[in-house]
Amino acid sequence: MSLLLCTRRRRMSELVRRWREQGLSIGLVPTMGALHEGHASLIRRARRGNDRVVVSIFVNPAQFGPGEDYARYPRALSRDLALCRRCGADAVYHPGVSQVYPEGFSTAVQVSGLSERLEGKFRPGHFRGVATVVLKLLETTRPERAYFGEKDYQQLTLVRRMASDLDLGVAIVGCPTARQPDGLALSSRNAYLSPRERALAPAIHAALVAARGLARGGASPKAVERRARARILASIPQARVDYVELVDARTLRPAERARGRLRLLAAVWLGKTRLIDNIPVFN
Amino acid sequence: MSLLLCTRRRRMSELVRRWREQGLSIGLVPTMGALHEGHASLIRRARRGNDRVVVSIFVNPAQFGPGEDYARYPRALSRDLALCRRCGADAVYHPGVSQVYPEGFSTAVQVSGLSERLEGKFRPGHFRGVATVVLKLLETTRPERAYFGEKDYQQLTLVRRMASDLDLGVAIVGCPTARQPDGLALSSRNAYLSPRERALAPAIHAALVAARGLARGGASPKAVERRARARILASIPQARVDYVELVDARTLRPAERARGRLRLLAAVWLGKTRLIDNIPVFN
Repeated sequence: MSLLLCTRRRRMSELVRRWREQGLSIGLVPTMGALHEGHASLIRRARRGNDRVVVSIFVNPAQFGPGEDYARYPRALSRDLALCRRCGADAVYHPGVSQVYPEGFSTAVQVSGLSERLEGKFRPGHFRGVATVVLKLLETTRPERAYFGEKDYQQLTLVRRMASDLDLGVAIVGCPTARQPDGLALSSRNAYLSPRERALAPAIHAALVAARGLARGGASPKAVERRARARILASIPQARVDYVELVDARTLRPAERARGRLRLLAAVWLGKTRLIDNIPVFN
Repeated sequence: MSLLLCTRRRRMSELVRRWREQGLSIGLVPTMGALHEGHASLIRRARRGNDRVVVSIFVNPAQFGPGEDYARYPRALSRDLALCRRCGADAVYHPGVSQVYPEGFSTAVQVSGLSERLEGKFRPGHFRGVATVVLKLLETTRPERAYFGEKDYQQLTLVRRMASDLDLGVAIVGCPTARQPDGLALSSRNAYLSPRERALAPAIHAALVAARGLARGGASPKAVERRARARILASIPQARVDYVELVDARTLRPAERARGRLRLLAAVWLGKTRLIDNIPVFN
């Protein structure tokens, strides 16, 4: 079957309506394009679980703050389409900004609590933009299942909460972070790194893994966070750490003890590039 | 066909899912119960336009402010069910508060601009509560059409905006306000009025109609509003007017001239009861 490219919302809705009338199940993989192996693994997972797979490609201005990298965020549509085809997607939804946010647009979805911590502290308004666009993509494509990478762990948690709170009736499927052999989490933003920065970047993941060892040994959350931060700065002297936090894996509230289902998250600047990563910690 | 009463969200979703699989169209009439002839006209309208009709009955705590009438808002389930049956509804969705807002609930929908004017100025947070619950009801019942009275004109406008902004794919149908022969708009809150207040209340509608005459004669919006306010206070000396405003019927922004598609809205206290009303003004 060939890959359909829909740039109009109505055409996309119409297509999924026909699929639904035929009793076909739909899986959605929302992306901002510049697709890499991490996205590919989501699409293949969706392919195995659904009759039809839609990949959305939309660089969402509403989730970028002023001064952030919206304008220079990598765009690579023809390569993206080739990857979608290779991974077995049935359709790509690639709307223009004015399709998604027509004149007079004035509605937003806010998930309180989750939105203000971690990334939200450093990127005010980011998760409001994420929640709103994800809801719109879900409404347009009406999937049974939607797939999100654990790489953006706070986003995954927030979308789960929203889907449950708003009775969306969609299963939110979280998928493990894809990594380079040296541990660096795949990200479209890795393309910004200079060769020297690229060589240093795996130290972030290594620091999280080392600090997890400490957590498993019974150290306090603060000690775990201090260790990870110190190790990042020791390996990458010019790094700037926005946060390293050990949190409850469900609520993202600071862990009180190194016990239960936790997650260790970090955001780190390398030069002009901001990278995020996280790993599970079960104790 | 008998009337089904669903108090569980999952049961309601399951029922509409089966209807949709059979290709049946669904109409939703969202209400807070204490149903009157205004609601009945919405249900009959939905009955004519759809294969299946769902009436939701839920007194939504999130749209009442502190000190408002949530606790004493009239509840009359068995009479409501009889009315729904009489008007040909197929199902009533009547969830408990903990079904709609389970522990940990933290998502809200905000429609900016529209939410802050008129009612929003006097009832902060009201429309956030309305938008959020209406979205949830639409998600649970997935109707082709949802029916709202023009009596709550700002609510109707806001729900239209939200449905369009969030790509909900539902038609929002506005229906004319039902009135007593003396002009008083039907409202569940009319039950709060003392006999004396009830006798005075039609003066609100009469004042709007008189002021509309002025607008049609070419008076300025300010003159129209002043006339309506003066006439309300002349007829009901103890009344307290929250607002009388002539606005653009679509954006609800203050009318600059008495020309085009306008709406004249008022909110007035009679003793402890707050009544709202509005009429169309075409010039």
